[in-house]
Amino acid sequence: MLENKDQSRTSLEELGEFGLIDHLTEHFKISQKTTVKGIGDDAAVLSFPDTHMVVTTDLLIEGVHFDLSYVPLKHLGYKAVMVNLSDVYAMNATASQITVSIAVSNRFPLEALEDLYAGIQAACINYKVDLVGGDTTSSTTGLVISVTAIGQASGDTIVGRDTAKSGDLVVVTGDIGAAYMGLQILEREKAVFKVNPNNQPDLEQYAYIVERQLKPEARKDVVNLLASLEVLPTAMIDISDGLSSEILHICKNSNVGCNLYEEKIPLDPQVISTCEEFGLDSTTIALSGGEDYELLFTIAQTDYPKIKANPNFTIVGHITDQGEGAHLITRANTKIPLVARGWNALNSD
Amino acid sequence: MLENKDQSRTSLEELGEFGLIDHLTEHFKISQKTTVKGIGDDAAVLSFPDTHMVVTTDLLIEGVHFDLSYVPLKHLGYKAVMVNLSDVYAMNATASQITVSIAVSNRFPLEALEDLYAGIQAACINYKVDLVGGDTTSSTTGLVISVTAIGQASGDTIVGRDTAKSGDLVVVTGDIGAAYMGLQILEREKAVFKVNPNNQPDLEQYAYIVERQLKPEARKDVVNLLASLEVLPTAMIDISDGLSSEILHICKNSNVGCNLYEEKIPLDPQVISTCEEFGLDSTTIALSGGEDYELLFTIAQTDYPKIKANPNFTIVGHITDQGEGAHLITRANTKIPLVARGWNALNSD
Repeated sequence: MLENKDQSRTSLEELGEFGLIDHLTEHFKISQKTTVKGIGDDAAVLSFPDTHMVVTTDLLIEGVHFDLSYVPLKHLGYKAVMVNLSDVYAMNATASQITVSIAVSNRFPLEALEDLYAGIQAACINYKVDLVGGDTTSSTTGLVISVTAIGQASGDTIVGRDTAKSGDLVVVTGDIGAAYMGLQILEREKAVFKVNPNNQPDLEQYAYIVERQLKPEARKDVVNLLASLEVLPTAMIDISDGLSSEILHICKNSNVGCNLYEEKIPLDPQVISTCEEFGLDSTTIALSGGEDYELLFTIAQTDYPKIKANPNFTIVGHITDQGEGAHLITRANTKIPLVARGWNALNSD
Repeated sequence: MLENKDQSRTSLEELGEFGLIDHLTEHFKISQKTTVKGIGDDAAVLSFPDTHMVVTTDLLIEGVHFDLSYVPLKHLGYKAVMVNLSDVYAMNATASQITVSIAVSNRFPLEALEDLYAGIQAACINYKVDLVGGDTTSSTTGLVISVTAIGQASGDTIVGRDTAKSGDLVVVTGDIGAAYMGLQILEREKAVFKVNPNNQPDLEQYAYIVERQLKPEARKDVVNLLASLEVLPTAMIDISDGLSSEILHICKNSNVGCNLYEEKIPLDPQVISTCEEFGLDSTTIALSGGEDYELLFTIAQTDYPKIKANPNFTIVGHITDQGEGAHLITRANTKIPLVARGWNALNSD
């Protein structure tokens, strides 16, 4: 699909490297007061008076993090930004700028990169962040996308992973496991397509989980909501690798243990029904499936009244002393040690 | 050389992703007051009271930007940092933090990545910058390195590309063309090695140019020197793609023209002799060879007395009105239009 067989498409050689950056970024507008100078110099210039800055970066590799046979480039651009903004929000900070570098082989026509940047731009507009820098270069094989996100927060509201306390409640936003099951649907359809290219998949009954995989939304709203509820989490992390792996990061960095309750884990009905269809255990998927980009945080018990009625939040357990370890309490009331398995690990099981 | 045939080497699978980051970065120390929180959370936290921040990022791809058959990984790590710090210094700013993300295939043993990070660490120590974040992931093919550098400057001393004025002098630091000729030597030795693997190359007579290619140094000293001389350049850029391409960036962004003088271009004797050996024109190499990471800047004529006797600086020309175009005045006193050809272009000529 992406091979440049269509002669009406524009090859990257025609444009050259400098022309390419200019072309791809010409419609990006600067919206943040903190952006003094954006794209077009050796470096961007930002000004953050009297605040703390947060910086995070991620590298996405074709064939490892995405498969262009079923991921539209516009969605990929959007998601590449989300992955990084999610890390900023997980610090309880506001995202304000991003840089994007890409490496592409000549098999991509200009129009493909325009699609990618249309997705990046949609993310910038929806989340009010400025694209302030980047780099385009050639690749010998696949597409590589590197995004760095910059955000800000006052020093006393930044929330790390290392400050959860025994007795704190463990809270998850939204629902989890959906992005992983969406990936299973897309992988299955790819396999079907290989056998019969004329087959038109009907993905309607999987719409939610496929969208969670292809077009995740970082939880900027949660940072704002927590502020308006006057809740400062004691620790926070985003769920990129599965609930189990993330809570273990908090436990390790905070020197605490935890008990999570299987019956409390928030699952969308589509996740449950699709797990049944695939013969998978939905709890396992929620614990070890990744890419949901929900937030996982801990709060002091005194904050419980502020969040208990809120449909965005589910209390899934509590923090314990480190000596008690990290466990899942099953519906059958058995206690199972939590194990860190990234979602990639699931594929080889 | 890099294949993991030696069974005493440690495979990356043994360590896992989280273990890998911890292992590679455990000896990195934080030295900057502005680094509030480094590696180990969703994002790094930095604090820059009352200053402007600069951010720049670069992506290095195996087979495009480096060839591991003759680039030692320690040098590669060092150079990957230099490339980015050079962009910060080109804004007349001080570099303070970097993030480094890498994608590697399993053909790299742990020891190879340790070498890479040893080079990164050497750069951090020599240039007093903190490694504050990053990401390691797998790659389906080669090595990918993404570096983001962050720096600071007061708002009124940042120097962009768009503020050169007609009548300004054009200044180059150090000498140029050496990194490109060093690359020619390394490429030639690689070809010789393929024919006769027992041949031990004697590179002593090329020591300077090979070092300029393998271990460039970003000109942090120039930023400090200009401050001590009380010279604020009117425009500045680093020379990563060759003098011609860089001066054209300044001309385009500043809406000016320029005259450069061939006889003034600073060349090391090793560049001249190696160009003769290869039958190449040394002026062409200086104009279009890249990766020297020297600085190119413009100054008001009134600043001339402050820099004229300094061995770090060479005045190579002057800025003109835009209508006059951008030219090289040759030794034979002919006027040739400057053309932007990146150093990659040279290889296909």
